[in-house]
Amino acid sequence: MTPPPARTREQRRTDTLARLENDVDAWLATAGEGGPYLVPLSFRWDGTTLVVATPAASPTGRNLRAGRVRVGLGHTRDVVMIDGVVEVVIAAADVPAILGDAFAAATGFDPRTLSTPHAYFRIRPQRIQAWRESNELAGRDLMRDGSWLV
Amino acid sequence: MTPPPARTREQRRTDTLARLENDVDAWLATAGEGGPYLVPLSFRWDGTTLVVATPAASPTGRNLRAGRVRVGLGHTRDVVMIDGVVEVVIAAADVPAILGDAFAAATGFDPRTLSTPHAYFRIRPQRIQAWRESNELAGRDLMRDGSWLV
Repeated sequence: MTPPPARTREQRRTDTLARLENDVDAWLATAGEGGPYLVPLSFRWDGTTLVVATPAASPTGRNLRAGRVRVGLGHTRDVVMIDGVVEVVIAAADVPAILGDAFAAATGFDPRTLSTPHAYFRIRPQRIQAWRESNELAGRDLMRDGSWLV
Repeated sequence: MTPPPARTREQRRTDTLARLENDVDAWLATAGEGGPYLVPLSFRWDGTTLVVATPAASPTGRNLRAGRVRVGLGHTRDVVMIDGVVEVVIAAADVPAILGDAFAAATGFDPRTLSTPHAYFRIRPQRIQAWRESNELAGRDLMRDGSWLV
């Protein structure tokens, strides 16, 4: 099957921002002593960073403290890939209401209500790429070093 | 929204084998000096192992040589998660026709035809988990230490 023509980078930026604003779930890849790790998690985009929440003692929670994460949005043939740094970690017990409420409203998931101690992680994108099929591999870089290229 | 009732582990094994046999794409999380890495790749399931192919010099290609990978199938609310070990690495130029042909037929992707040197990686699952929503987190382990539990 011939894929549709490659999108412009401007269109990919528009599509990427739509995913960040409207999608709820992402795949989070982290790494630690246990090797590579991967989980689906809900996120909220606040315009410049992604916020996720997960049990503080889980593999993802531990690995995120090391500061690096690669986030996949969309599906395997319509991907937004984000390399990010973890900028802030906040225990659920300490989270400001404005952040906790916004996260719960966006995701339908409120870790403040759970008995397992959770933490919130604020992820700042450093690199963003977007592609669908192999004809979109060229031109997939939309952000580098934290700055939009387009 | 209330999710549907949790599936039995027997049903999850059936659903997992159906994904392994019928799905084409997976998310591959690896780790290396560059930190956590994540890409969508096509795979073929041969009944006991997954085969993927990617440029030998890519981050995923390099990381897979370290031997460990976590593979996500499905989507974020219907996940099959596989922790695997890389058992065999074969340069595309050296791949037996029976393997290369089966991979191309299953995925529509034939790395033998590409100018960028690719390698095939055979991944043996050690642990398999399957869940949809949070009510399926209990009972999600289907394979441990390479053996089906159910």
